[in-house]
Amino acid sequence: MLSLDQIKDITHESPSKIVLLVIDGLGGLPRPETGKTELETAHTPNLDMLATKGICGLADPVSLGITPGSAPGHLALFGYDPIKFLVGRGILEALGIDFELKKGDVASRGNFCTVDKRGLITDRRAGRISTEQNAELCKKLSRITLEGAELFVVPVKEHRFLLVLRGEGLSGEASDSDPQQTGVTPLNVTALTASGKKTAKLANDFLTKAKWVLADFHPANMVLLRGFSQHPDLPTMKEIFKLNPAAIAAYPMYRGLAKLVGMKILETGSTVEEEFDTLARHYAEHDFFFIHVKKTDSTGEDGDFDAKVKALEEIDRLLPMITALNPDVLIVTGDHSTPALLKGHSWHAVPVVLCSKWSRPDHVREFGEITCAGGSLGRFLAVHVMPLAMAHALKLTKFGA
Amino acid sequence: MLSLDQIKDITHESPSKIVLLVIDGLGGLPRPETGKTELETAHTPNLDMLATKGICGLADPVSLGITPGSAPGHLALFGYDPIKFLVGRGILEALGIDFELKKGDVASRGNFCTVDKRGLITDRRAGRISTEQNAELCKKLSRITLEGAELFVVPVKEHRFLLVLRGEGLSGEASDSDPQQTGVTPLNVTALTASGKKTAKLANDFLTKAKWVLADFHPANMVLLRGFSQHPDLPTMKEIFKLNPAAIAAYPMYRGLAKLVGMKILETGSTVEEEFDTLARHYAEHDFFFIHVKKTDSTGEDGDFDAKVKALEEIDRLLPMITALNPDVLIVTGDHSTPALLKGHSWHAVPVVLCSKWSRPDHVREFGEITCAGGSLGRFLAVHVMPLAMAHALKLTKFGA
Repeated sequence: MLSLDQIKDITHESPSKIVLLVIDGLGGLPRPETGKTELETAHTPNLDMLATKGICGLADPVSLGITPGSAPGHLALFGYDPIKFLVGRGILEALGIDFELKKGDVASRGNFCTVDKRGLITDRRAGRISTEQNAELCKKLSRITLEGAELFVVPVKEHRFLLVLRGEGLSGEASDSDPQQTGVTPLNVTALTASGKKTAKLANDFLTKAKWVLADFHPANMVLLRGFSQHPDLPTMKEIFKLNPAAIAAYPMYRGLAKLVGMKILETGSTVEEEFDTLARHYAEHDFFFIHVKKTDSTGEDGDFDAKVKALEEIDRLLPMITALNPDVLIVTGDHSTPALLKGHSWHAVPVVLCSKWSRPDHVREFGEITCAGGSLGRFLAVHVMPLAMAHALKLTKFGA
Repeated sequence: MLSLDQIKDITHESPSKIVLLVIDGLGGLPRPETGKTELETAHTPNLDMLATKGICGLADPVSLGITPGSAPGHLALFGYDPIKFLVGRGILEALGIDFELKKGDVASRGNFCTVDKRGLITDRRAGRISTEQNAELCKKLSRITLEGAELFVVPVKEHRFLLVLRGEGLSGEASDSDPQQTGVTPLNVTALTASGKKTAKLANDFLTKAKWVLADFHPANMVLLRGFSQHPDLPTMKEIFKLNPAAIAAYPMYRGLAKLVGMKILETGSTVEEEFDTLARHYAEHDFFFIHVKKTDSTGEDGDFDAKVKALEEIDRLLPMITALNPDVLIVTGDHSTPALLKGHSWHAVPVVLCSKWSRPDHVREFGEITCAGGSLGRFLAVHVMPLAMAHALKLTKFGA
């Protein structure tokens, strides 16, 4: 695999346009009754047409057998080696609620939890308190002051919140206070390396004060922190690929991931039709578009096979809104598989189709897991999707003399 | 991928013979009228017989989506990771005209160019002056003397020449004087690291004197230099693979690349028939042969689909001259694709067939791009061709205990 610096040396600007449609959790597993996955079950004439015209394959987002989180799944598709470029849990939480991170901020995922009189954790999620209660308690925690750093406590959903520390000399090199089990006390935060000392001290100070503030709010009478992390400060797609990239995503986390690599975020309605319409309206302004569709993942996570099939059929029905724009390169794939049968992300390789005037067609005529396995792209790592897209858009020059 | 040191540990000498036939620019793109590539269009019963007997796949010379220059394309086939082992532009230029490089030499690609009265470049190729004029001007430039280094100025073709600096303490760590655009002045050569200081100084001295020498020779009244580089000093195939390798190539650049890895260069006529005949005559003397056929690439670069088809058919017709020798391992592939439709090197994966008594046959019956995609080698990196060849020649022992 070329390094980003090596790729940077061979990319050049051109008017050609690339559209990357990410169908979240695209891949699935066959329903035993039919032997067909969600994608194989869905009636998808437009995706099948793409498969017929283009080239297909199966992509592993991170590595064979590895189930990716949303961050590595997307970073790979954006061309960033997901094994090298890591996004911490805290940062992802911040991206997920559109929190405006500054350079140097340390973010951490927080849970309200329940502790008994001896301080032992009895419920790591505080009975999943309501989001409203969460907001009230976060307001109280926000009043805590720490010496040497600003502090933000922002509610997420139910028992989840975001803690951000802002100040000089912070680092993500601090251990979790969340022991990930009940029947024990929360842990002290410790510095994982010397650079984490100040962060650990601030976090422990916050935890002491939070315990005091929350003492009377059973079941949410304590908090757990995990995933201390800093903004990864990635080189932008503009620097590496010389693209002017834009993102269309209804969910904040995916907008956040796009922001990490310097994409412009386009305002959009939240339905697939509205997202595709946003693409059409802004098509003249950018040369790279990332469009994220969420529903296939959430229905997969719900274990709702039929709903995922319907979500795929809706995307297929609307696909002509994209193909009508005639992008020089159109890629349709997912950031990972979410089989309804597993009710969660999985490690299964993800179907990919790449359609361009300069692709050498293969024999694949249907867009599905088994058919893509026979495509000419073979089985490959998702981090190669961007170089392939750039090549087919004629935006790469020769490597080496 | 194993390192060369790791490979070295498991190779051993044996009488078995490997023949690697490199059909330059082998892969293509389908002609819209027929949907068939050059190779799929060509009548190639002998290659198809190899595909039937052997195993097939599609190789990416460098990485998915990456278009290789000739050097990375060949180094990969010789078993050298083309991302790690780089050959500079200047060195390739020297290899291309059979210039005898010495260790420590710094080579640079030169262009005659035109500058106006203010010194701004108006034509980076000096109106593509004739090769004869080039030779005359190079003779004049050869008379320039530099303090601390010998200097060679050797004509190539039209506006292109080779500059070689020979002396102590030189390095390729010097920037181009060629700004790769018109309307600006040539750049000063600067040291990219401390080791490039002497080279940069010598190059700038040469450029100052060249400007003076050429002042009256409009349109070739200045020169541009780029790709300062040194001989990469690769471990030889003898060291790594314990082979006694020979190269048969009508074009100097490919002989030069073969020399880089220590192959013996066999004198040969320039037709395919003469090249194959050279193989037969020297067959007893070596256990590895690299044969390079150029015409498929040059016809591809010319955009001449039919001529490329004919070149492929000629190779196929003569192939029995090779198979009659019954090599233990015969591999036919290319260093990259050169689709006539793109008139140049491309990133498309290259068909590979490997034929040996010890290959486990697959279902492929025709040697073509789509059929090879379905072969049992799958889609793989070209750097694995040599380990596969060595394995099938029973020249590798077990890796690890």
